[in-house]
Amino acid sequence: MNGAEALIRTAAACGVEVCFANPGTTEMHLVAALDAAPGVRAVLGLFEGVVTGAADGYARLAGKPALTLLHLGPGFANGIANLHNARRASSPIVNLIGDQATWHLAADAPLTSDIESLARPVSRWVRKSATATALSGDLADAVAAARAGSGGVATLIVPADCAWGDAPGPAKPRPVEPRGAVAGATVDAVAKRLRGGAPAVILLGGDALSRRGQLAAARIAAATKARVLLGTFPSRVERGAGLPPFAKFPYFPEQGVELLAKVGELVLAGEKEPVAFFGYPKLPSRLAPESCHISVLASPDQDATGALEALADALGAKPDDGERAPRAALEPARGALNSETLGRTLAALTPENAVVVDEAATSGAQWFGFAAGAAPHTALSLTGGAIGQGLPNAVGAAIGAPGRRVIAFQADGSSMYTIQSLWTMARENLDVTVVLCANRVYRILKVELARADIQQPGPAARSLTELKPPALDFVSLARGLGVPAERVETAEALAAALAKSFATRGPQLIEALL
Amino acid sequence: MNGAEALIRTAAACGVEVCFANPGTTEMHLVAALDAAPGVRAVLGLFEGVVTGAADGYARLAGKPALTLLHLGPGFANGIANLHNARRASSPIVNLIGDQATWHLAADAPLTSDIESLARPVSRWVRKSATATALSGDLADAVAAARAGSGGVATLIVPADCAWGDAPGPAKPRPVEPRGAVAGATVDAVAKRLRGGAPAVILLGGDALSRRGQLAAARIAAATKARVLLGTFPSRVERGAGLPPFAKFPYFPEQGVELLAKVGELVLAGEKEPVAFFGYPKLPSRLAPESCHISVLASPDQDATGALEALADALGAKPDDGERAPRAALEPARGALNSETLGRTLAALTPENAVVVDEAATSGAQWFGFAAGAAPHTALSLTGGAIGQGLPNAVGAAIGAPGRRVIAFQADGSSMYTIQSLWTMARENLDVTVVLCANRVYRILKVELARADIQQPGPAARSLTELKPPALDFVSLARGLGVPAERVETAEALAAALAKSFATRGPQLIEALL
Repeated sequence: MNGAEALIRTAAACGVEVCFANPGTTEMHLVAALDAAPGVRAVLGLFEGVVTGAADGYARLAGKPALTLLHLGPGFANGIANLHNARRASSPIVNLIGDQATWHLAADAPLTSDIESLARPVSRWVRKSATATALSGDLADAVAAARAGSGGVATLIVPADCAWGDAPGPAKPRPVEPRGAVAGATVDAVAKRLRGGAPAVILLGGDALSRRGQLAAARIAAATKARVLLGTFPSRVERGAGLPPFAKFPYFPEQGVELLAKVGELVLAGEKEPVAFFGYPKLPSRLAPESCHISVLASPDQDATGALEALADALGAKPDDGERAPRAALEPARGALNSETLGRTLAALTPENAVVVDEAATSGAQWFGFAAGAAPHTALSLTGGAIGQGLPNAVGAAIGAPGRRVIAFQADGSSMYTIQSLWTMARENLDVTVVLCANRVYRILKVELARADIQQPGPAARSLTELKPPALDFVSLARGLGVPAERVETAEALAAALAKSFATRGPQLIEALL
Repeated sequence: MNGAEALIRTAAACGVEVCFANPGTTEMHLVAALDAAPGVRAVLGLFEGVVTGAADGYARLAGKPALTLLHLGPGFANGIANLHNARRASSPIVNLIGDQATWHLAADAPLTSDIESLARPVSRWVRKSATATALSGDLADAVAAARAGSGGVATLIVPADCAWGDAPGPAKPRPVEPRGAVAGATVDAVAKRLRGGAPAVILLGGDALSRRGQLAAARIAAATKARVLLGTFPSRVERGAGLPPFAKFPYFPEQGVELLAKVGELVLAGEKEPVAFFGYPKLPSRLAPESCHISVLASPDQDATGALEALADALGAKPDDGERAPRAALEPARGALNSETLGRTLAALTPENAVVVDEAATSGAQWFGFAAGAAPHTALSLTGGAIGQGLPNAVGAAIGAPGRRVIAFQADGSSMYTIQSLWTMARENLDVTVVLCANRVYRILKVELARADIQQPGPAARSLTELKPPALDFVSLARGLGVPAERVETAEALAAALAKSFATRGPQLIEALL
C-alpha cells in the first residue's frame, strides 16, 4: 500500500465520506487511491473555489468534514476565498494539497511556491507531511483538528513522494475534542444580570442557532423580556414555522449602534461581540456603547445550546415558554420583481425541510423576514463576506443532505466568482434550485459609493460597479454548464418556475430579472 | 486631495495607464479617484483571476506595469494563481489591495485576514501603508519595485483610512533600476567555452526572447554549431518568418534528459537551468548530466540581448549570419480536428503582427512547430503552470497592444478557471479570437495517470479527469458572457471561422471540437 491509499483508508475510518476535488499531476496517486480504497466519494469541481465552497456547504449540513483535493499553491489559492468563509463558519474541512516531491522542492520548478504561507490565514491547523509512513497519521491528526470544538479548517500538504511511497497502512482515528461545556457559575452570573432588569439583547451564533438553542433562547426572552437576535451572518440556522421568529442583527453599523444604544446588557451565546463589517470615518468598530455590559454566556467554541437551556431553567422558564412563529398564510406576490416580491414568493413556496443558501445580497434583503413564517427550513449565509460562496455551498449542501431541496438564492454579481458550480450540480444531478437575482449592478457598491459621499459617480466608478453592458445572460450560461434554465420577469412567473423546479429532480436555474 | 487621489495621480505620473479592477467597499475611494485623477483607464473583471491575468498579459505586451485593484485578503487570493504566473514571467504589476481601516483591524470583522501572508509568495515587494500622507510615496516605491530589473510583482496594501484621509499630493516617480549589464569577461569566458567544441546548447528566456536576442543567438549558432532552444514556457517570444525557427525545450523530463545527455556545454541566456516540471520516482530534478558544464551568460535579471550580441561579435559572427525561417507555404488543413490540423490551420491563417496566447495544453502541442514559418507574431505561454492564464492574458494583451489581433489558443479544462474573461472582452470590445479546443477531458492528467502506472483508472480517477458528462457548451457560455460564438468540427470550418473573426472587430469564440 502506498501513502495515498493509507491516507484515504484513514479518512474513511475517520468518517470522511466525500472528497471534493480539482486535482493535478501531483495528486494523481491520491486520485488513484480514491478507487483503491472504498468509502470516499469523489466529486469534481471545475474550479477550486467550487471545491472549497462545496466542502463548506457539506460540512454545515452533514456536520462532519469533507476532504478537498487541490493542486499545489496556485490551485489551493483559488480555494482560499471560500475557505475564509468556512473558517468564519467554523466548518470542519480537511484540505489535501499536493506538493512537489520533497527532493524536488529545491529545483524551484514553475509550480513551486510557499504553500504554508498561503494556507495559514485560513487554517487553524497546517502540517506538511515528511514521509509516506507518517502520512496516514498526519491525516488522522488533521481530521481531529478539523472536528475539534466548533470545527475548523485543517490543511495537510502532501508531497508527491509521500503519496507514492510505501506505507505500512492506515492510522487509527484520533479522539476528537468536543465543544467546551459552560460552567454553571457562568450561567448563574448571566441569569443574575438578566434578572437585574436592564434592557437586554441576547445574540445567537454558531451552536446556539440549532432548533434547541433557539427554543431555549425564546424561553429566556419570555422570562426576562430580553430581545433575542441572530448574528448578522448565521452559518446555519433552523427557521420557519414552529421556531422563534428571531431577526438578524443589522448589517450597517449605524443601525447596530442605534439598536444597542439603550441596551444595558448584551449576552453572547456562540457569537462574538458585534463589530462594524467595515470601518467608516465617523463610526466606531465596536457597536455596543461603553455603558453596555457584555456577558459571554458561551464562546463560539462552547456548548451554547446547553448553556441556553441551563440559563432558561435557571430563570424559571417553562419548557413551552416563548414565542414561536405560526405558519404564515403567505401568498406568492404579483407583479414586478423586487426584494419584497422576490422574498415573499420564495418564502411562500419554500418546501418543508428545504435548505436555503442565501447569497442574494441586496436583492434578498426582505426574504429573511418573510421566511420566519415559511415552512421549516435551514438557512446558510455568507459568513466571511468573500462573495462566491452561495453556489458552491449549495453543491455541498445537496450532497450533505440528500433528499432535501436546496435553494441557492443568489445575487448576479456574486455568482460570477464561482459560476462553474452549476456544472457540478448538473454532473451530480443535485436537487438544487438556483434563484439568480439579476439586477445587473453591484448594488451594494452603489450604496457604498453614496456612503463615501460620492454622490455623482464618474465614468470609472460607474464602470466598476455596473454589470452591463453587456448584460449577463444566465439562461445561456446555465445551459452552457448543463443546467436547464429559464428567465422570469414577474412574481407570477417566478412562482410557476419555482413550483416546477421543486417538483422536478435535478438542478434548475431561474434567472429572476429585477 | 485624499490619499486615494494622490495615489492615482502618482501612478499616472509613473507611466501607469490602466487599472484592472474588481473592487469592494474598502476600495471605493480608490475607485472614485480613478475619476478624480485623469490618465488611468479602469477595466472591470468579474473575477479577480481575470484582473491579475489581464495585468500580466498587459505587462508582457506593453512592457510597463498595470495596477490591479482587489478587495482585501479573499479578493486578492482569487488573483494569486495568475500572479504566480506573472511572477514566473517577470511581469511588472502593482497590486493595490484595500484593507480594513487601520483602527478597525483589531475588531476582526468578517473580511479581515492576514493579507501579507497571502501576498508574499507571489510578490517581490510587499508593503502596507501606514498613513494617507505616506500612501503616494508608497505607490511610487511600488512602481519602481515592479519595474526594477526584469520586472516583478509589487503589492501595496491600502488601509481604507489611508485612502480616504487627507494627503498633501502626489509623489514623484522614483528612479528605476535597469537590467544589470553582463560583464565583458563573462561574455569572453562563454565564447572561449563555445569555441572549445563540446556539443553545446544555448537556452533562451526572458529578455533573450526579443527579436534582437534571437537573431544574435542564431549568429552564435552559425559560428559555433551550438543548438539554440527556447525555454519550455517563454513569457513572450517573437516568432515567425524572418526569425530563427528555434524549438522549445521539451516538457517531460525524460525528453529533457535525453536532449542534454551528450551536451557538454549549456549556456543560459535569461533562462534558468532546466529542471523537471514535476518530480517522478525514477527521474532527476536537474535535467543536465553531471558532465555538462553550465555557463550563465545572463541571469533572468540581466541584459541577455546585449550579452548575446556581444557574444556573437566575440565569436566573429557577421550581422546577417544565422538561420531565419522562411515564410512557410502553409495551407490550412482539412478533415477532423486534432493537434496537427488545429496547429497547421492556425499557423497558416495567423495574421501578421498577431499575439497568440498559448494555453492550448495537449491540443496545442503541434502548433508551435508550424508557427515557426507563420507570419511574424508574438507568442505568450503559461509561465507558472497555474492554469487559467490564457483568457485573461488575452484580455490584457489586447489592451496593451491595441490594433493587433489577439488569438487566445485555449484548452477547455483550463478555460474554466477564468471563463469570466470573455465578458471583459465583450465589454471592452477587444479584438480577441478565442480558439477553444474542446477535447472534453483533462488530457494531461490522463497522461499523468499512465505515467504513474495507473493503466486502468477506476471510476473516481475517470470522474476526476474527464470533462463530461455533461459536455460543456462553450457557444452558450460565450453568448451568456456577451461574446459571439460558433462551434466547428473540421479544419475547413475552423479556417472559415478564423478568417471571419480576423476580418471582424471585437471578440469571437470558436469552439473547436476535437
